[in-house]
Amino acid sequence: MSTIAERSLALHGQLQGKIEVISRKHIESPEDLSLLYTPGVAEPCLRIQADEEESFRLTRRANLVAVITDGTAVLGLGDIGPVAGMPVMEGKCALFKELGGVDAFPICVDTKDTDKLVETIALISKSFGGINLEDIAAPRCFEVERRLKERCDIPVFHDDQHGTAIVTAAALLNAVKVTGKEMGKLRVVINGAGAAGCAIGKLLISMGFGNIIMCDIHGIICEGDEGLTSGQEELSHISNLGHEHGALADAMKGADAFIGVSRPGLVTAEMVSTMKEGIVFAMANPTPEIMPEEALKGGAAVVGTGRSDYPNQINNVLVFPGIFKGALSVRAREITEGMKRQAAQALADMISPEELSPQCILPAALDRRAADTVARAVAEEAVRSGVARV
Amino acid sequence: MSTIAERSLALHGQLQGKIEVISRKHIESPEDLSLLYTPGVAEPCLRIQADEEESFRLTRRANLVAVITDGTAVLGLGDIGPVAGMPVMEGKCALFKELGGVDAFPICVDTKDTDKLVETIALISKSFGGINLEDIAAPRCFEVERRLKERCDIPVFHDDQHGTAIVTAAALLNAVKVTGKEMGKLRVVINGAGAAGCAIGKLLISMGFGNIIMCDIHGIICEGDEGLTSGQEELSHISNLGHEHGALADAMKGADAFIGVSRPGLVTAEMVSTMKEGIVFAMANPTPEIMPEEALKGGAAVVGTGRSDYPNQINNVLVFPGIFKGALSVRAREITEGMKRQAAQALADMISPEELSPQCILPAALDRRAADTVARAVAEEAVRSGVARV
Repeated sequence: MSTIAERSLALHGQLQGKIEVISRKHIESPEDLSLLYTPGVAEPCLRIQADEEESFRLTRRANLVAVITDGTAVLGLGDIGPVAGMPVMEGKCALFKELGGVDAFPICVDTKDTDKLVETIALISKSFGGINLEDIAAPRCFEVERRLKERCDIPVFHDDQHGTAIVTAAALLNAVKVTGKEMGKLRVVINGAGAAGCAIGKLLISMGFGNIIMCDIHGIICEGDEGLTSGQEELSHISNLGHEHGALADAMKGADAFIGVSRPGLVTAEMVSTMKEGIVFAMANPTPEIMPEEALKGGAAVVGTGRSDYPNQINNVLVFPGIFKGALSVRAREITEGMKRQAAQALADMISPEELSPQCILPAALDRRAADTVARAVAEEAVRSGVARV
Repeated sequence: MSTIAERSLALHGQLQGKIEVISRKHIESPEDLSLLYTPGVAEPCLRIQADEEESFRLTRRANLVAVITDGTAVLGLGDIGPVAGMPVMEGKCALFKELGGVDAFPICVDTKDTDKLVETIALISKSFGGINLEDIAAPRCFEVERRLKERCDIPVFHDDQHGTAIVTAAALLNAVKVTGKEMGKLRVVINGAGAAGCAIGKLLISMGFGNIIMCDIHGIICEGDEGLTSGQEELSHISNLGHEHGALADAMKGADAFIGVSRPGLVTAEMVSTMKEGIVFAMANPTPEIMPEEALKGGAAVVGTGRSDYPNQINNVLVFPGIFKGALSVRAREITEGMKRQAAQALADMISPEELSPQCILPAALDRRAADTVARAVAEEAVRSGVARV
């Protein structure tokens, strides 16, 4: 039996691309040509010219997301360049369609200049109904997303940040429930303060889990520290409420939850044993911060990873198809914090009280119900909060 | 019965977009997910990082064209803006797939600044195997295409220029044959010296039809005229060999062929009657420079228009799917003048001597054989001339 890498390479070579652009109507007669192309097409063009909003009714913008990268932070591979990142982008687009029914198209932008990246994406954004930013390195990703949200009137969503944050929050909601811990009173350690870590921190704080301690390679991040990125600096004012200093091991003492979006092998069973009936989400890919067997040895109560070969796979594939499906369905102007919170809650609520256990805190990654469940919650919140247009 | 405009609008509203992005493989099992996405996808990423050329084997770049506009010269509608141009771009993408099996994706770029347009297209170009520029106004389209051809190592092709030129040249080859005129000795008047007109002029000259007389709104264009665009200026040195001056009516006296890419109703039966057994291609859309009935009254020997309701429809839908299909099949670095000439010849040769008549100089617009015929000729010439990479 060949390895996954070998089989994946063979499959990619055979498919020559994982997505395909097809016509929604066969063009077989002069009548087809005259309705779909000239001269008939002039009429929908003129309608859109008169009212740009019509583009969401008369073109694919209605259901279309761009998956855009600069290739600087692809998977665990790092800065491999925009073209090399394309297999990931295509895979993501395939998942958008397969799981959410959302059309998605991959675009790599060949620049590391923030201004150029923002300008390029902004100038093509009107071709789409939403923008999914992907695998853009921190701290640049924060500025890119912020500036694009200001310029575009369609949802802009950096999935590495927010998709990861939402699925993590959902998992944590259920882990809290299954361990009987008390919301608002938790001590949660997040190791890794890049794109994903900062977004998780912000979302968990806004959802009221308790005191969040952010750690990076130098240890605990504290208000007033020098050399923080803008994302870390923002978080430093609302996290680590006791102004603690120290190493990751110090942070984990007495913690209720550890969330790793960092590197393999940073956490030991002994560190877990200092936690308070610890919830351990070790999400470094493909090798976690601590292997589940080790975490359980250290006394962990609930363990989740990014992997499909252990229980509790925490994968943002449960999130992004539904987020955009919901946002597009009501023409949401943006994805708000409220929409993210509702998405996390809806995802957590998919696990019934009967199903809930330390080995079952999330639906399976390919659970077909997830996209619709998330979409419904997102759309309802968009309508409630007034960011929906229809 | 409702009008074409009404039916087209209804169909567009029903389809909500004429194209769709699908997954080339259903994703149903954790195994699918691990091969098409993480962790397996890392391997094709690394192969492309090591050799960017692999992107033409492992991603959809192999068969993918961007159809890009700024919306400044859409159909006969003019500068209606990038979003309003999208129904045309989507229609074109649908035709690419339906007729040529080529995946094509529409992108509108929201700028009228030439530098920004070039920069934006160049920065996203590595997502594609080819760039089809569309409906960009002259004279900007010339500079945009020239600069992109310099920057990109994939084919860049402004269809309004070259697609139109190729199908016109094919029609003219057969019209010359059917009238028994002599190649190289023709006097050909082209009215309209914008994007399409200039490209037609250049191609006809390079194919050796004879003396080409370009006219614009001020009449015959002559070497040394003031206020010429760069495209017109370039042509002025190789056209109008007798340095004539005068109006369109003067140019048409004794002409073998009239090619109109201008405006409705500029040509009268009387003007046609001054031609030498005139070939009249009146391609203004939807209303030609002269209606076929009138042209025949004036003694025209062969008449073609852009319309499907008259014989000899001269429509570049016969060209662009095959051009890109052929270029992509051999990874051509560019579309050369030679490839355009071969495409025109191959298209003309589709009409057998038995079929050839004044009412039949081109295949029907939706003839399914055209794309493959053009593709074969284009690929062969690319290999012959050394611009093919495989």
